Amino acid sequence: MKYDIEKYFDRLWPITRSLTGNGNRESLKILSEIIDLEVTEVPCGTQCFDWNVPPEWNIKEAWIKDSKGNIVVDFAKNNLHILGYSEPFQGKLHFEELKSHLYTLPEQPGLIPYLTSYYKRRWGFCLSHNQLIQLDKYETYEIFIDSSLDGNGSMTIGEAVIKGKSDKEILFSTYICHPSLASNELSGPIVSAFIYNHLKKQANLKYTYRFVFVPETIGSIYSLSVKGEYWKKNLSAGFVITCIGDDGKFTYKRSRIGNSLTDRAVEIILEQTEKDFNIVEFSPIGSDERQYCSPGFNLPVGSLMRTMYGKYPEYHTSADNKDLISFEAMEKSVLKYLEVIELIEKNEKYINKMPYCEPQLGKRGLYPTLGSQKGTADYVKVMMWILNLSDGENDLITISEKSKINVKDLFPVVDILIENGILVNEK
Amino acid sequence: MKYDIEKYFDRLWPITRSLTGNGNRESLKILSEIIDLEVTEVPCGTQCFDWNVPPEWNIKEAWIKDSKGNIVVDFAKNNLHILGYSEPFQGKLHFEELKSHLYTLPEQPGLIPYLTSYYKRRWGFCLSHNQLIQLDKYETYEIFIDSSLDGNGSMTIGEAVIKGKSDKEILFSTYICHPSLASNELSGPIVSAFIYNHLKKQANLKYTYRFVFVPETIGSIYSLSVKGEYWKKNLSAGFVITCIGDDGKFTYKRSRIGNSLTDRAVEIILEQTEKDFNIVEFSPIGSDERQYCSPGFNLPVGSLMRTMYGKYPEYHTSADNKDLISFEAMEKSVLKYLEVIELIEKNEKYINKMPYCEPQLGKRGLYPTLGSQKGTADYVKVMMWILNLSDGENDLITISEKSKINVKDLFPVVDILIENGILVNEK
Amino acid sequence: MKYDIEKYFDRLWPITRSLTGNGNRESLKILSEIIDLEVTEVPCGTQCFDWNVPPEWNIKEAWIKDSKGNIVVDFAKNNLHILGYSEPFQGKLHFEELKSHLYTLPEQPGLIPYLTSYYKRRWGFCLSHNQLIQLDKYETYEIFIDSSLDGNGSMTIGEAVIKGKSDKEILFSTYICHPSLASNELSGPIVSAFIYNHLKKQANLKYTYRFVFVPETIGSIYSLSVKGEYWKKNLSAGFVITCIGDDGKFTYKRSRIGNSLTDRAVEIILEQTEKDFNIVEFSPIGSDERQYCSPGFNLPVGSLMRTMYGKYPEYHTSADNKDLISFEAMEKSVLKYLEVIELIEKNEKYINKMPYCEPQLGKRGLYPTLGSQKGTADYVKVMMWILNLSDGENDLITISEKSKINVKDLFPVVDILIENGILVNEK
Repeated sequence: MKYDIEKYFDRLWPITRSLTGNGNRESLKILSEIIDLEVTEVPCGTQCFDWNVPPEWNIKEAWIKDSKGNIVVDFAKNNLHILGYSEPFQGKLHFEELKSHLYTLPEQPGLIPYLTSYYKRRWGFCLSHNQLIQLDKYETYEIFIDSSLDGNGSMTIGEAVIKGKSDKEILFSTYICHPSLASNELSGPIVSAFIYNHLKKQANLKYTYRFVFVPETIGSIYSLSVKGEYWKKNLSAGFVITCIGDDGKFTYKRSRIGNSLTDRAVEIILEQTEKDFNIVEFSPIGSDERQYCSPGFNLPVGSLMRTMYGKYPEYHTSADNKDLISFEAMEKSVLKYLEVIELIEKNEKYINKMPYCEPQLGKRGLYPTLGSQKGTADYVKVMMWILNLSDGENDLITISEKSKINVKDLFPVVDILIENGILVNEK
Repeated sequence: MKYDIEKYFDRLWPITRSLTGNGNRESLKILSEIIDLEVTEVPCGTQCFDWNVPPEWNIKEAWIKDSKGNIVVDFAKNNLHILGYSEPFQGKLHFEELKSHLYTLPEQPGLIPYLTSYYKRRWGFCLSHNQLIQLDKYETYEIFIDSSLDGNGSMTIGEAVIKGKSDKEILFSTYICHPSLASNELSGPIVSAFIYNHLKKQANLKYTYRFVFVPETIGSIYSLSVKGEYWKKNLSAGFVITCIGDDGKFTYKRSRIGNSLTDRAVEIILEQTEKDFNIVEFSPIGSDERQYCSPGFNLPVGSLMRTMYGKYPEYHTSADNKDLISFEAMEKSVLKYLEVIELIEKNEKYINKMPYCEPQLGKRGLYPTLGSQKGTADYVKVMMWILNLSDGENDLITISEKSKINVKDLFPVVDILIENGILVNEK
Repeated sequence: MKYDIEKYFDRLWPITRSLTGNGNRESLKILSEIIDLEVTEVPCGTQCFDWNVPPEWNIKEAWIKDSKGNIVVDFAKNNLHILGYSEPFQGKLHFEELKSHLYTLPEQPGLIPYLTSYYKRRWGFCLSHNQLIQLDKYETYEIFIDSSLDGNGSMTIGEAVIKGKSDKEILFSTYICHPSLASNELSGPIVSAFIYNHLKKQANLKYTYRFVFVPETIGSIYSLSVKGEYWKKNLSAGFVITCIGDDGKFTYKRSRIGNSLTDRAVEIILEQTEKDFNIVEFSPIGSDERQYCSPGFNLPVGSLMRTMYGKYPEYHTSADNKDLISFEAMEKSVLKYLEVIELIEKNEKYINKMPYCEPQLGKRGLYPTLGSQKGTADYVKVMMWILNLSDGENDLITISEKSKINVKDLFPVVDILIENGILVNEK
């Protein structure tokens, strides 16, 4: 899988994505090779709660030339060089005038920052501080920005659904609006697409799985304006997938609820399969969980990441690039998400139909016939725990916590007890 | 008391007990000298939930002889030598054939294991691994097992009740089915009998005390089939008494409820009277609490032991014998159970009838007349705590926890406040 | 402020206060210069719950003279020398007879103890153990106590109220019954009066503030007999103010409720403003919180002190005097109480009127227009936390705890959000 991941990464990386525009359309088209995305165009100006979809932005060319005709900053070299949503501009400016349109990171002088101005019209260039220093303070520069802001355009979003037996949904939401940021953006859509790709092959899924590819903030707000009330009734678990590209240890940021199915499933999987990981409490600073977990919705949406946004120095700079990430780690991240899904699928409050004393497992061939042996066989212990706690109050996650038996070791024994008619699904 | 305990131990030790049989009848008869047991014969085949009482098993003689006529394994020497519930057998077998009927503990080569085969017909001998090694591999052995399995027999159980003022019951359940295991079996019935013996002498008991002497598993399942629904309404606390023979520190295994009256009473007594002890969470692996705490009943039954089953190497071997146990410790165990009972009897959510401000204790002669002394007298503190917390929400155990006053120090002050009409029993 | 505090301390210190009497009247008159006290005379004999107001006690003169006419113990020198509520006496007694009327502290031989006998008629003198030793065992002494106990007198109490917008009350209760004890008594009324004095100047208070100056125990019991039922409905927070005179670290004794508004407000202020402090669980041993927190009332009354009663060796002795206390610390204590009041005033469960996704703060000028900057501005974080948690379940104290933002830093942002119509007060 990791070679496929890299192949798609390389194709998607150079495309200029933003809240809107052709780059987003092209990206979703490429991703459609892996995930069956239904693409929707949301007209600019569409109202969603307190927000309106902004004009569609496209950009072809942008540069700064010195008086000798040398291009000193060029969008063609790195699409981070343009301030996101820059309005078109053409003209000559003395360095003193130009200066206020140039953005750098003096503390990380070698890196280009990532900046946008979605809701206030301006133009600007982002460049490394080292580049800035080399510019001639007495020079007059020529500026050219061939961009467009079209109020009659649209915002492009993609959605894919795998129907399960139940209407209850598991949500995967990822964003497609950052240009050339590897872990902080591109890892999200790619990992999401590969999770879909694996999950699609599984038969008899209990839950319905919905994958949403949207620009951050305005995209998830739009989705909530359409599906929010439905999700309040039907969303069982959900994930914002971002910062999942490097090989740092896993970080799980809890949903606002704090002990939702999402939280409990991820945390027990991490505890039982990973040596080291971070659990982070919900905070309203972050990605699209800010919207999903806004108080009017309060959905069970968490975020299983690798190294979290804001916690690595390359975050929101040109150094969040292919060198930072690991395709092997991204493959493992896909598999970790699939482990969590396996648990969510299997987790139930099962009911022991023979709750009065223990059932006689011996006559069903489920118990060693030789009694009083010094060690009770492990599978007998697992059976005893499941039978004792399956009173409709405890799901498998709780049984695993109380018994200290790995939750995955419960799965086969649950199946045997169901086959023998002793255990039933609550519903 | 400890000499009486030893006397009964010595008389009961050689008797072969099992799920059923004359050894159990004889044992209950001896115990009836201390406890007023009503003995019941439950016909073999009787159904109790998913189980049926197995045939009655009796055994007179069992041995293995070599070709020279030497008895090499002899039930007469140690009743652990016979696999429990062995069917009758007579014949000559070459060692190679005999081998699969011989059970040893290679890792504890000097000890005879304890094994049974209650629900699958087979025969076998248990012996030390050292004995096994000395057998001649080329020899043909004569085997004789004079046992009987009688479907028309019965299972023998004993029960004794001390009626208190209330129908609310405290249960003591102990098992009588292991042959020659000192702490893991015989300590249980003996300690139970002596608890009864002391308790019987007390007048005005609040609770009704029920003592149940049954074979493990099938016996408690039978009891639950008769009394289970009644106990769901009326059982206030309960104990499975086993592994109470050695002088190890106390171990309390919680009921499945986890904070039942049983749990709270035992734990506060241990905390306030013992330097060191173990608290073990409920697990469905163990003794008859597996049945009492099955999810359909979920009774408040815990187990106050010394060194717990499975936690000492002599467990379920011939080394769990008189050398392992201490009659002085067993006496102390009886007294510890009586301390717990004293607390259960006294524990109530009392009601302060003068809850608006403090009552004027001075005019009742309950307060020092000299005010503002630097140290408030200890009994005044105890009064203040009891009065302040006796709002119908806090029982004495909670008052002891919150005030950090030993619960036993509350008892005399409660009595004084009741005498003065300030405190009343909730009911 | 500290010089004013000292000035009032020096004027109030020499006055003999007790449960009743002219000293209390005089003290309240002096305090009325700072706080608008309404003084009430409660007739002796008045019943309040289980208690009756005792006779009014006044004392003019009291001494012990040796046979040479030398006064060896003199109330005029220190009003602690007389056992509180001593009945009048005149006569000559041999030392052997006198002895039982003399009270000392053998373990603190240089100090005079503070003792009373309110409800049993007796007379006595308190003196240092060193003084006692110097008395001549063969001497006959002349005793003179010019006191009076008047069943037709009254108990004097003072009360001041600052009306706020709501009938919901905050109570400050302090006692005026100890003679010449600096931290254990006089710091309480003085700090209370200065809190009133500052609070009175504030406009638009939400709560109504009630200040109660009473003798300990009988005084608060009387107040509860009048206001107790009203307070059960209307008291939001309350404080017993005592032991607030030294410069030890703050000690907060919780209300019986344990997590009342009083408890939560004081504790978060101490956590966020003090390096070191003590939190003490409620106990029914102490001052007037014994009455306010009796089970029939269970009011949210705690006690924010400096070094707590019983925790310093000078407690209830002549060494709890001006040398022990600090007027600078008393000033800081007043300000600390005012910080707590500021929080109580501001604390609400506000409601985010735009709970579906984030409001678009940008178009309201509340958000930086340049997006994706590496650090989110601090005030934006504060806004996000307030908006996310203002669902009617979380008050500012909880928001501060969850966000780890100092509660005082929430106040200005709450105001901005209210001004912008995004946040409203629940009510």
